[in-house]
Amino acid sequence: MSRETGGVKFALAQINPTVGDLAGNLAKMIHHCRAARDENANAVVFPELAVSGYPPEDLLLRDDFLAECARRLRELGEAAAPLGVTVVVGHPLAENGKVFNALSVLCGGETRALYRKRHLPNYTVFDEKRYFTAGRRAAVADIGGLRVGLTICEDIWHRRPVAQSAELGADLIVAINASPFHNEQAFVREEGVVRKKARRFRLPMIYLNQVGGQDGLVFDGSSVVVNAGGEVAARLPAFREAMQCVEFHRPAFAAGRVEARLQSPELIYRALVLGVRDYIDKNQFSGAVLGLSGGIDSALSLAIAVDALGHERVTAVMLPSRHTSAMSLEDARAEAQTLGVRYQEISIEPLYRAALGQLQAWFAGRAADATEENIQARCRGLLLMALSNKFGYLVLTTGNKSEMAVGYATLYGDMAGGFSALKDVPKTLVYDLAAYRNSVSPAIPERVLKRAPTAELAPHQKDQDSLPPYDILDPILEAFVERDHSPEQIIAAGFEPATVRRVVAMVVANEYKRRQAAPGVRVTSRAFGKDRRYPITSRFF
Amino acid sequence: MSRETGGVKFALAQINPTVGDLAGNLAKMIHHCRAARDENANAVVFPELAVSGYPPEDLLLRDDFLAECARRLRELGEAAAPLGVTVVVGHPLAENGKVFNALSVLCGGETRALYRKRHLPNYTVFDEKRYFTAGRRAAVADIGGLRVGLTICEDIWHRRPVAQSAELGADLIVAINASPFHNEQAFVREEGVVRKKARRFRLPMIYLNQVGGQDGLVFDGSSVVVNAGGEVAARLPAFREAMQCVEFHRPAFAAGRVEARLQSPELIYRALVLGVRDYIDKNQFSGAVLGLSGGIDSALSLAIAVDALGHERVTAVMLPSRHTSAMSLEDARAEAQTLGVRYQEISIEPLYRAALGQLQAWFAGRAADATEENIQARCRGLLLMALSNKFGYLVLTTGNKSEMAVGYATLYGDMAGGFSALKDVPKTLVYDLAAYRNSVSPAIPERVLKRAPTAELAPHQKDQDSLPPYDILDPILEAFVERDHSPEQIIAAGFEPATVRRVVAMVVANEYKRRQAAPGVRVTSRAFGKDRRYPITSRFF
Repeated sequence: MSRETGGVKFALAQINPTVGDLAGNLAKMIHHCRAARDENANAVVFPELAVSGYPPEDLLLRDDFLAECARRLRELGEAAAPLGVTVVVGHPLAENGKVFNALSVLCGGETRALYRKRHLPNYTVFDEKRYFTAGRRAAVADIGGLRVGLTICEDIWHRRPVAQSAELGADLIVAINASPFHNEQAFVREEGVVRKKARRFRLPMIYLNQVGGQDGLVFDGSSVVVNAGGEVAARLPAFREAMQCVEFHRPAFAAGRVEARLQSPELIYRALVLGVRDYIDKNQFSGAVLGLSGGIDSALSLAIAVDALGHERVTAVMLPSRHTSAMSLEDARAEAQTLGVRYQEISIEPLYRAALGQLQAWFAGRAADATEENIQARCRGLLLMALSNKFGYLVLTTGNKSEMAVGYATLYGDMAGGFSALKDVPKTLVYDLAAYRNSVSPAIPERVLKRAPTAELAPHQKDQDSLPPYDILDPILEAFVERDHSPEQIIAAGFEPATVRRVVAMVVANEYKRRQAAPGVRVTSRAFGKDRRYPITSRFF
Repeated sequence: MSRETGGVKFALAQINPTVGDLAGNLAKMIHHCRAARDENANAVVFPELAVSGYPPEDLLLRDDFLAECARRLRELGEAAAPLGVTVVVGHPLAENGKVFNALSVLCGGETRALYRKRHLPNYTVFDEKRYFTAGRRAAVADIGGLRVGLTICEDIWHRRPVAQSAELGADLIVAINASPFHNEQAFVREEGVVRKKARRFRLPMIYLNQVGGQDGLVFDGSSVVVNAGGEVAARLPAFREAMQCVEFHRPAFAAGRVEARLQSPELIYRALVLGVRDYIDKNQFSGAVLGLSGGIDSALSLAIAVDALGHERVTAVMLPSRHTSAMSLEDARAEAQTLGVRYQEISIEPLYRAALGQLQAWFAGRAADATEENIQARCRGLLLMALSNKFGYLVLTTGNKSEMAVGYATLYGDMAGGFSALKDVPKTLVYDLAAYRNSVSPAIPERVLKRAPTAELAPHQKDQDSLPPYDILDPILEAFVERDHSPEQIIAAGFEPATVRRVVAMVVANEYKRRQAAPGVRVTSRAFGKDRRYPITSRFF
């Protein structure tokens, strides 16, 4: 029972933990416990596996990691007890040789309830059956006199966990989550799961999600509180840490602050910014460096980097060759100037000439081909990496998903770098994001959005010389990569058979390049990386 | 009942399928059905998922792939029927929206038995719960009047599948497998599982394993036939395709050919050769190119490449710099000459000088550091990749597991390449393998085995300037990487605390490099790659 109002007050702590930073995560949670106490909350709710960060991957196979998680959990309970705040928190639990994805309700120095996640996702980016044993029982905890049904993430996508909480007389459900973002996920999650389950079982629900970037994943937060009719009583912001208190007067939550839902392309842009910022900051890089080409991908990547890190932490380098047009140089300068970043030009010509000279004897009598183009890209990669090594900047690669899909990129060349903003962004979406970013403030010269895409690795080269137009290519790729459609299905949907077969063959043939690509922010329902595990050696198209 | 002897004759077809090559795998199996018929066999046994190749990974999420597998399975049954040979074969099975890892017994154009794998491995390199639903029932098939208990791979590592076959009155067990190699696996599998289970349940067993390389995995074959007392009645060779017929006269197999078991280091050397050969051949490269440094890693990699591909398909390049010693040049020449490969020297000096020249203004006033060393390595990577691009050779990288673990390698430099022979071979084992290879025939100059390891990227540089001696480093790495021991446990085992902490910190800090490394042959119980899934962003040591 709340100290003031007769209701029960829950503080939703939408925090951004760091994987493996057990001391840091604990300190962050204790800070939020104090803040919750200051707001007279009865309980504070933290995300799934907040103690360890999510996903801890194979750290979960180490006994010392599990023991340290258990120790930090005890410390959290001890710190919260004198504050008079009940803590709902997710953590790994080692028990009789098994490991569970667990939730503890800590109150007055004791564990009042312990719940073990029952539905373990083992698809797309998830490997939870590699680590965890599934729990078998529902759990309802007493918090401030209320019966609170406990669930973890995947559980509420199924029927039984919520149904059994209802049977056990729950007044409401608390669902703690580490639910990764993609372009459809925030909507599906709130509309298709949280509100639907609440209505179906006539149970109010607190849906608390973590926020932050972890390698290729972004967690958007977007925590939400709904009542038994499915009405939204409160919504937390997307893509930033936040705490909000919501008050429950049986049988419903009082209305709280409801943040507006973001729409694409802003939604995706904000995901990219957070993904880049957290990768660079959590890995403690001083800043980022990237190569500008005068094209739209590097221009957009620069804007994202500046929005993520601030202009003082970003360095842009233009690496011209004999094929670089005056327009490209002008536009690169304009981009750097508009966004206020350090900018330098370093010609690759001396390196390129030296490489050709050394290879001359071997290459005698052979026509120029992609080899010479790749050498140029690799001279650029070499110079960018030298700046990275000398100054501690992370190199941001600037390729997009369409290029990564068909292998229109040079391994160790433009693919050289520590992280990619646009790895999961199809080229057609790059244009939408650029237009959105320019609508906020000028960032990218208009003609960069309008000129025909070119790699400028050979005279008069255009992407469309080797690839179908992007408005044909991208839907084929989406069908094949994201929807697992067969070439025959895609052809039946109206695409030219020869084009479909050529695109599919390129995707299959270039798996080896993607396997050596930098990680990048996942924003679609099927990103390259652990979301899509294809063999390199494969003869199936 | 056999046509000749009154026994039942099983042909064990230890084949090397290719993932996704459904037409090729079918042709190979039909060929073996004919060969089995020619030997008057009653039945032919193929490996787990022989129809698709193993592991097909996310191809299993595609409906068109599953449908094509079903079609090829039907064709196999139709082709075998007129031959009068019963076929035991593994294949994916799509059924009511679920997918099973299945075994069919095909006889006379009909499916006589269908078994669904019950124990799905989802650890180390395995992701079977991502794809498959577990079967729930034992199955016993009639083959030539015998009752044959059917199992797939992981099943026989558990009690129930064999126990239930025994309860159902099986005369023998047939286990089909795709069991990947590592240094302890062949022994554990035969001694700890096959012979033990046979003895325990008094059941003879056919253990049929596939052979071949698939990306980072090698399957060793080493199929074995044991009787109810655990005695080995037949053993097939390791690391090559083979077929052998074994005859069962109730209650036992007649003695057949028993290949000797290989011991390390020969065992591991042969795994590396097969892994390199199959990656290059299945991915249809014309040959391999690698950089020789005068050191032992590149010398051993060259010997493996030559043993895998033949000397005519291997090109060796020495890429000297100002820091390259005369001894290194001499030894590289000697290695190439001894093994009879094409050899060329290309100095990196012009590129290196050009790169330093272009960076001069940026680097002014800063001391030389690892940046300059990395530039040299990247000049080498650039030249090797140019040869790869121009001539269609795969670049073999030459780094070893100790280096990959602590990050003693340059991303896009010596790490540039399509495949690695020694990725999972610790440096101390590199020496054993080199000595073994020289015992077969001269390959590596003796002084290469004796000189102190050096990267030759700076004057008078030795590996031991930056790393602990390898006989200290390797046991620490094995404990931390392969055994999941904590730093405290390793210190308690007698290693110097500061050394252990430094090594562990290097392993954690260099995950980002390994994520962009080429695939390579797995030969230990925990290789880098999908066998060890650590977050890049992590603060736990």
